[in-house]
Amino acid sequence: MQLHNFNSGPAILPKEVLDEASASIHNFNNTGLSILEIGHRTSWFVEVVEEAKATVKRLMDIGDDYEVLFLQGGATMQFMQVPMNLLDENGSAAICDNGVWGNKAVKEAKLFGPVTVVSDTSDKKHTYLNKQLELPAGTTYLHITTNNTVEGTQWHQYPQVNVPLIGDMSSDIFCRPTEFKKFDLIYAGAQKNMGAAGVTMVVVKKSILGKVSRKIPAILDYQKHIEAGSLLNTPPVFSIYVSLLTLRWIEKEGGLAEMEKRNNAKATLLYNTIDSHPAFYCPIAKEDRSIMNAVFFLTDPEKEASFLDLCKKQGMIGVKGYRTVGGIRVSMYNALPMSSVQAFCKLMEDFS
Amino acid sequence: MQLHNFNSGPAILPKEVLDEASASIHNFNNTGLSILEIGHRTSWFVEVVEEAKATVKRLMDIGDDYEVLFLQGGATMQFMQVPMNLLDENGSAAICDNGVWGNKAVKEAKLFGPVTVVSDTSDKKHTYLNKQLELPAGTTYLHITTNNTVEGTQWHQYPQVNVPLIGDMSSDIFCRPTEFKKFDLIYAGAQKNMGAAGVTMVVVKKSILGKVSRKIPAILDYQKHIEAGSLLNTPPVFSIYVSLLTLRWIEKEGGLAEMEKRNNAKATLLYNTIDSHPAFYCPIAKEDRSIMNAVFFLTDPEKEASFLDLCKKQGMIGVKGYRTVGGIRVSMYNALPMSSVQAFCKLMEDFS
Repeated sequence: MQLHNFNSGPAILPKEVLDEASASIHNFNNTGLSILEIGHRTSWFVEVVEEAKATVKRLMDIGDDYEVLFLQGGATMQFMQVPMNLLDENGSAAICDNGVWGNKAVKEAKLFGPVTVVSDTSDKKHTYLNKQLELPAGTTYLHITTNNTVEGTQWHQYPQVNVPLIGDMSSDIFCRPTEFKKFDLIYAGAQKNMGAAGVTMVVVKKSILGKVSRKIPAILDYQKHIEAGSLLNTPPVFSIYVSLLTLRWIEKEGGLAEMEKRNNAKATLLYNTIDSHPAFYCPIAKEDRSIMNAVFFLTDPEKEASFLDLCKKQGMIGVKGYRTVGGIRVSMYNALPMSSVQAFCKLMEDFS
Repeated sequence: MQLHNFNSGPAILPKEVLDEASASIHNFNNTGLSILEIGHRTSWFVEVVEEAKATVKRLMDIGDDYEVLFLQGGATMQFMQVPMNLLDENGSAAICDNGVWGNKAVKEAKLFGPVTVVSDTSDKKHTYLNKQLELPAGTTYLHITTNNTVEGTQWHQYPQVNVPLIGDMSSDIFCRPTEFKKFDLIYAGAQKNMGAAGVTMVVVKKSILGKVSRKIPAILDYQKHIEAGSLLNTPPVFSIYVSLLTLRWIEKEGGLAEMEKRNNAKATLLYNTIDSHPAFYCPIAKEDRSIMNAVFFLTDPEKEASFLDLCKKQGMIGVKGYRTVGGIRVSMYNALPMSSVQAFCKLMEDFS
């Protein structure tokens, strides 16, 4: 049976990335050694890191005022690392709480300084985004989750603010060309659109660092990682390499413009299918719907179990909604082919 | 040319671990999916984590008073995470500074409370271990680096103390049966003896936690990781899987007793070769020599470059000493075959 991988993350990767990753475990780059067995300070691996950084900068069209780091710990680490490096009692963090992940960012930031929740969309179960943000005087930075993986919303136009903008782009990084330069710090766990679990990309404008006086442990200090060229200690070698392979694939396929074209086509087909079949409904405000994660429900909730059962039988992987939300979630990251969305929509029609 | 991989870490892994890791990237456990594409909360992956934990407990012969965690960030993260969870102003950390890594542990601990360096072996360039430790009253815990990867020393009998004992076992974990139960917390980056870079094992006795009042960010809180069964957030899936494969290999080969037998045989051959050829000398006190990392020098330092050149020509990988120490370092982790040490000793004899 052919499988269709709609996992929300770790998620589907391009077949050629998997092929090359698998081969590199036997023989990396004709060195005769496995990618798992080479030193991280060898020129072999330093070249991997440097090419990955350069590719990120090309895709984002950013200059040397930004630094690209490959760290560990996922977005959950960034929820505390961002405020530890940027926030103190002299300012306050403005954070949008538009769902599970934004909410965690709020909780962690509070350990390091004052926090203002400038948008809380829990009144409508996070089915929309509030774009009218009022930042209090003394705001140090604004933090947004650019795509809410769990709830299915996505910022399609970023807020225009006069303080540093921080973006958790874990689930929509590189899904389209976007205004990366509006941001002063972007982070993304790799396991959705740019590789396998185990590495977190951080892109930071150097000028925002060094402004808090607290002593920061070395491993959590962006500045120290920058000075060490993202090789402060043993990095997650294989995960960084898989990210490089994925970044290469994005460029080879036509870059972010091509990703957007494909992602828009997939999302349009799926949302049209949902909206045109009364057996399903999507509660997310149309203008805020995510092109990465479509969250929707069966009009008759009693039919959900049999729909999920049918999905399972037909090889549709990972379409059960997040445990706190329920319903159906279909994730359509860069590597998911249109044919999978077509197969899923066909199944919806048949079920309907 | 046959390569001999003496890398200090990331280091050599058993061929069958590499074979299975490579295959799992195409088809993990007959799921039809890549190990890089499966959700970390699927029963498939939960089973991986649970088997890895259980194998660690069997190898260490420890009970349910300990918890096994698979975290990120390497020993460098543990240098700050240990004191963040255990140390405050009401006590003090006693730390042995026997080289590069112990020294970093000292620096990071100082951010969280008082620190006493109870052993500083820099007077003799860390070529020995001081085993007569005097712990000041009020010591919260004693931290040792069980094997000094850079300097080539190893604790062969752990200190007997009446405070919790913490061990950084990154470079000698599972090299032999040992008194794991003497420790209240053991951590180890996986990339030497138990897998690939990207995951750090922490084994912690639950009773030592919860005694400091500081608020700990979720991702750094051992207690929260325990409550979440080591799945607090997206873990480094592939690295954990490679650790499981390596743990399985250790058991299948005969467990820690067999590892010790092999490692002792390799180390004995190498140190005997060094000691019996005046062209080489090992400055490390005999009783403290590491069976994992042999650090030695050429008696005539001017010949070092030509020796390293010969090593390179004969496929000996990773034998240059650490940048601050110089000389030669031969790492002989579990997966390194005796034949590689024999080949290296043959080369030493020829050169001599």
